[in-house]
Amino acid sequence: MKKEVLKEPIFTEKIVEIIQTAQSSDEIREKLTDYHDNDIAQSFELLSQEERKLLYSALGIKWMAEIIPYVDDIDQYIEEIGMDQLANMINEMDADDAVDLWEELDESIKDKLRPRINHETKTDIRLINLYDDDEIGSLMTTNYICIKQNLTIRQAMHELVRQAGENDNIITIYAVDDQGCFCGAIDLKDLIIARETVELSTLISYAYPYLLDHQKISDSIEKIKNYAEDSLPVLDKDKKIIGIITAQDVIEAVDDELGEDYAKLAGLSAEEDLNETTKESVKKRLPWLIILLFLGMGVSTVVGTFEGVVAVLPIVICFQSLILDMAGNVGTQSLAVTIRVLMDENLNSKDKLLLIFKEMRVGFCNGALLGILALICLGGYIALFKGYSFGTAFLISGCVGISLLVAIIISSLVGTLVPMFFNKLKIDPAVASGPLITTINDLVAVITYYGLAWALLIQIMKIV
Amino acid sequence: MKKEVLKEPIFTEKIVEIIQTAQSSDEIREKLTDYHDNDIAQSFELLSQEERKLLYSALGIKWMAEIIPYVDDIDQYIEEIGMDQLANMINEMDADDAVDLWEELDESIKDKLRPRINHETKTDIRLINLYDDDEIGSLMTTNYICIKQNLTIRQAMHELVRQAGENDNIITIYAVDDQGCFCGAIDLKDLIIARETVELSTLISYAYPYLLDHQKISDSIEKIKNYAEDSLPVLDKDKKIIGIITAQDVIEAVDDELGEDYAKLAGLSAEEDLNETTKESVKKRLPWLIILLFLGMGVSTVVGTFEGVVAVLPIVICFQSLILDMAGNVGTQSLAVTIRVLMDENLNSKDKLLLIFKEMRVGFCNGALLGILALICLGGYIALFKGYSFGTAFLISGCVGISLLVAIIISSLVGTLVPMFFNKLKIDPAVASGPLITTINDLVAVITYYGLAWALLIQIMKIV
Repeated sequence: MKKEVLKEPIFTEKIVEIIQTAQSSDEIREKLTDYHDNDIAQSFELLSQEERKLLYSALGIKWMAEIIPYVDDIDQYIEEIGMDQLANMINEMDADDAVDLWEELDESIKDKLRPRINHETKTDIRLINLYDDDEIGSLMTTNYICIKQNLTIRQAMHELVRQAGENDNIITIYAVDDQGCFCGAIDLKDLIIARETVELSTLISYAYPYLLDHQKISDSIEKIKNYAEDSLPVLDKDKKIIGIITAQDVIEAVDDELGEDYAKLAGLSAEEDLNETTKESVKKRLPWLIILLFLGMGVSTVVGTFEGVVAVLPIVICFQSLILDMAGNVGTQSLAVTIRVLMDENLNSKDKLLLIFKEMRVGFCNGALLGILALICLGGYIALFKGYSFGTAFLISGCVGISLLVAIIISSLVGTLVPMFFNKLKIDPAVASGPLITTINDLVAVITYYGLAWALLIQIMKIV
Repeated sequence: MKKEVLKEPIFTEKIVEIIQTAQSSDEIREKLTDYHDNDIAQSFELLSQEERKLLYSALGIKWMAEIIPYVDDIDQYIEEIGMDQLANMINEMDADDAVDLWEELDESIKDKLRPRINHETKTDIRLINLYDDDEIGSLMTTNYICIKQNLTIRQAMHELVRQAGENDNIITIYAVDDQGCFCGAIDLKDLIIARETVELSTLISYAYPYLLDHQKISDSIEKIKNYAEDSLPVLDKDKKIIGIITAQDVIEAVDDELGEDYAKLAGLSAEEDLNETTKESVKKRLPWLIILLFLGMGVSTVVGTFEGVVAVLPIVICFQSLILDMAGNVGTQSLAVTIRVLMDENLNSKDKLLLIFKEMRVGFCNGALLGILALICLGGYIALFKGYSFGTAFLISGCVGISLLVAIIISSLVGTLVPMFFNKLKIDPAVASGPLITTINDLVAVITYYGLAWALLIQIMKIV
């Protein structure tokens, strides 16, 4: 008998089958307890509206409150769920889920829900909305366990069980003093395996790392990652604990930070997704393009001064795009490396100098190799297909080769210095560097190439 | 009295102070229990070698085994720790930490350590090394709690406490059947708050999501993120649980995936860091550059066919760089958006068609706006500074404007279709698309611009 090989699980189809074949609501409940809430949420789009309504009523408010946070595009189901039911679900949700959902809803839906939302949920939403999107406070959740530091082990365990009903981030328990100020953290594992005779204070790490609510996310994300904790406490200026950041929040933050940097490198002012309107997309892309257009016009006027060279030796225009493209590509590579290094590490002046020298060395090696390649290939091409003598052909391709080398070295340097400069000014280097680097590189490449062509080919060798 | 405002914590300096002023090893141990292992690790570089050696012996093997995983650049401390001690620490480490550290070490150090590493650690290292870097198995850790499904609540709790000494990922407990096959998961919280009379099976989610050891990381990272669990089990083809993926592993994987995409968008074959040699960096950057050089040479031959246009109307070369740069920028924007959309979502054909139309609409809007801007500004510039009549000036700038519009629309289309095409072929669109898009866009822009200039300005209007 051939042994069956395990495949990737597809739970959604089984869930659909359960709902379609079940004889009663109880049977649905009973059978679905084994499934992950995310899989139940993913099955929504495979069900008909009737089947979904059956599911909503079978699972009930409490369970639905745990499933809703996993649903993509909740908007399309709001009507069939109904405002009263949805409000009840939001009231039942963990604080962070309620806040996340609230941010997704349309203003008209919010207006209808507001009178039905309870005080506690409203307070949570208000708290998180106090913070700017780039502040740690905007990421946090109030879903955590917090106990007095002077309890016994037994009292602490009892308090944990009590609070665990409401809050499910239990892996780290936070301790506060009599004034309610944060004083340390307890690892759940230590509490579970501790003997009852031990003092709780021996389990508390009193110098536990914490975050401040108004701290910038981009400044602290590396630090948070380094602690590799399942959660870190967020304190306000009075040392009161007001929330925590969980590993799941960190995943989202890392995703966002890198996604933003990725978008900026490509000249978008923010990340886009599939469902945006044309207008929103144009708004995100146009600013950079307009800046580039005007900088490009500046470059054009410089190219214009070399009209004389082109008029007498038109072949040189063939290779302008080659040199400019290569300079641009090399500049982008240096820019990407520099931005990542600036983001990842705390560099001192020595490190920065090392990075600059490294980029120049890499630029020199790449430039020399590419320059020689261009010299040989283009020299052959010009001699064979453009009807120039071999001597003249290699003089022209020599100009291209040398220009490539110079342009690539300078592009490497510019691609490193410009982001460092913006970083020093506390301007996000990912967003500001692109246009400036493109322009400087274009100018350097054009001047080197046409300048060299003018000096070497026309003035010295007088090949025309 | 002015109230003190809470600042960001700087624990490392306090740790250094403790070590420098302590009277005995016991005092160091005693005082450092309050600090996070990461902060102790970060203090290493602020200490002298003597002070570090004092710290190593004060903390002992077991504690050091928890600190070492947080140390940056462990290499510099290996000698002062000593091979015997280091081997003991590795033997004490959590499995995943031991494997991570092992991968960082030089081959010569590994050779010295090998005879001193115990069997269990060797088995773990061998298991993880079985997998390719892009397979789920390479991310996993064997640090998890696993119990038989037929235990009572009391037995399960007892087993948990026993295993928690060795393994600290306790938030989800995995259940296996009598054959040792994975059958479900238990939430620690449910176990803690369960009454002793309840059957353990009622706490087990029997259809819990799992990953396969040979699954590709890039294919499953979105799915893993969606489950938002602190850990997911990894199974082999016989349904045996062989490890777990923790939220911390997911953070690393997300970071790596996005970092790689970011590098590829910039034309690097892999991510770089500060400490690489010039040779390694050249190797990562040169492949793309060489491809681009030859594609650029291809474009050059096409530009060459328009030598005639330039010879009679040299002013047109001024704006070549402008049009090519803009086409390139727009293409990169579309590319970046498309790659992120392809990565994030499972698109059907309808979604893809929508994305293509959206990109074309955005391209048309941006192209029209930028074209009109260019028409007006450049027309004025040519008339005022280049000595052409207003009519001729606006004919020339009209050529630039129309070329911009056409080039931008086509660039948007190319920037969307090319990555979709590579995605269809199962080739990573981020790495393959860049050079092809640059080249197609350059060709389109050059042919449109010079073609239009030749047809409109020279053939029809006969302005020369």
